[in-house]
Amino acid sequence: MTKIKLRLSYDGTDFQGWQRQPAGSPSIQAALEGVLSQLFSETIKVVGSGRTDAGTHAVGQIAHFTPSKPFAQEKRLVRAINSLLPDSIVVKDAWKAPDDFHSLFSARCKTYIYRIWNDPVRSALWRNRALWVPQPLDLDLLNQYASGIVGEKDFKSFQSAGTPVKTTVRRIMDAKWKPFKNGPLLEFRITGNGFLKQMVRNLVGTQLYLERHRSELARLYDIFDAKDRQAAKATAASHGLYLYRVEYPPALDNKCLKL
Amino acid sequence: MTKIKLRLSYDGTDFQGWQRQPAGSPSIQAALEGVLSQLFSETIKVVGSGRTDAGTHAVGQIAHFTPSKPFAQEKRLVRAINSLLPDSIVVKDAWKAPDDFHSLFSARCKTYIYRIWNDPVRSALWRNRALWVPQPLDLDLLNQYASGIVGEKDFKSFQSAGTPVKTTVRRIMDAKWKPFKNGPLLEFRITGNGFLKQMVRNLVGTQLYLERHRSELARLYDIFDAKDRQAAKATAASHGLYLYRVEYPPALDNKCLKL
Repeated sequence: MTKIKLRLSYDGTDFQGWQRQPAGSPSIQAALEGVLSQLFSETIKVVGSGRTDAGTHAVGQIAHFTPSKPFAQEKRLVRAINSLLPDSIVVKDAWKAPDDFHSLFSARCKTYIYRIWNDPVRSALWRNRALWVPQPLDLDLLNQYASGIVGEKDFKSFQSAGTPVKTTVRRIMDAKWKPFKNGPLLEFRITGNGFLKQMVRNLVGTQLYLERHRSELARLYDIFDAKDRQAAKATAASHGLYLYRVEYPPALDNKCLKL
Repeated sequence: MTKIKLRLSYDGTDFQGWQRQPAGSPSIQAALEGVLSQLFSETIKVVGSGRTDAGTHAVGQIAHFTPSKPFAQEKRLVRAINSLLPDSIVVKDAWKAPDDFHSLFSARCKTYIYRIWNDPVRSALWRNRALWVPQPLDLDLLNQYASGIVGEKDFKSFQSAGTPVKTTVRRIMDAKWKPFKNGPLLEFRITGNGFLKQMVRNLVGTQLYLERHRSELARLYDIFDAKDRQAAKATAASHGLYLYRVEYPPALDNKCLKL
């Protein structure tokens, strides 16, 4: 039994999210499990670092699985998987991982990116990859809100219903808005030790709402203090969101052997 | 009768190119003409600055049309068109153009971009937007070839069959390879006073072929001298290509009134 760790990228447009769906509608997990089960000639279950919503993309999702026997030509595993996956999903890297590695439980922090097409006219080429906001956004004001997100805080107001969790406290190490290239694209990047359900989308939607009303930073703190999902109001659309990176403790990373 | 000039962007993935197709398969021109005919309550024909191939994109395609009566709320024309076009096509700007403006005949120069995903592993997010080249490309060598393309030359060897032209001589003002952002994306940008059928794709395909064989620049000149399409060999895939910009004489531009 060798545990295999994978780093994946995908275009979420045509999928109902990461998670396998009961009705069999297309999901990243189901597509990946189908290919791995074929290659290993047994039923393979993969565990991801977390779910991504329908329409949300990934640059560096992490997943692991444990086949009962090794792959015959393991140096060719990545190529074999990619030759069978649809074009919209790709495995970037594979590692032999130690037994104590777990995509979800070992994750130390995650980085998400949220992209906005900030132009009076919508974009044809970014239509599935960035949220269209026609009115000009004030980056300085947005960055004031972003600074108010950083730290160890209770994010209960920014949690969508559905998944019970022990605590709604999370630590955000970094949150920042910046222009992406010189075009009308903007990018919000956030790194934290964990994220509640739709937390990034709720944080983005709330910041955009506050910006539109030119609210003071104190208003954001009020929303935190309310500890009530109703206080946050807006959820930004899923197609602007990218799971960018998942990080693990160096001690674990060092035990991962690249294939 | 007022002539209207439009600047368009589109994702060419789901279209059989710019040109209206006899069998009614989806084309940018047909989609645009359908929307304009509906808005102006008459049959509208548009003239583009040139065709783009199936799968090829545009950041700044130019087209014009001449309705028999003006649009009632012309300041809202762009918004009206965009509300009816599919998401994969968008009008960025519209102008009232002088009678002597012609999208195709007045064009003074055009710029195309060709994008390459240069990484051992294919890209999910760029799959329809860049050609995948797995082996590392030598940018310096490619730029030697690019420098050999610049100037007034006979591009007969780089013309695909199909469209008769008076002369195959064109003037290329600029041609250059550079990394796009810091990622594994590369970009070839070329500006010229006109382009033959599939000329950019043939130039890119030929440069990639020469690079793979580490050929000297002289080999490129041999291909020019042959004046034979068979000499050029390779046509790069259409989905890496973007029509980036079409330029007109300033005297004409100055007579265009932005709506």
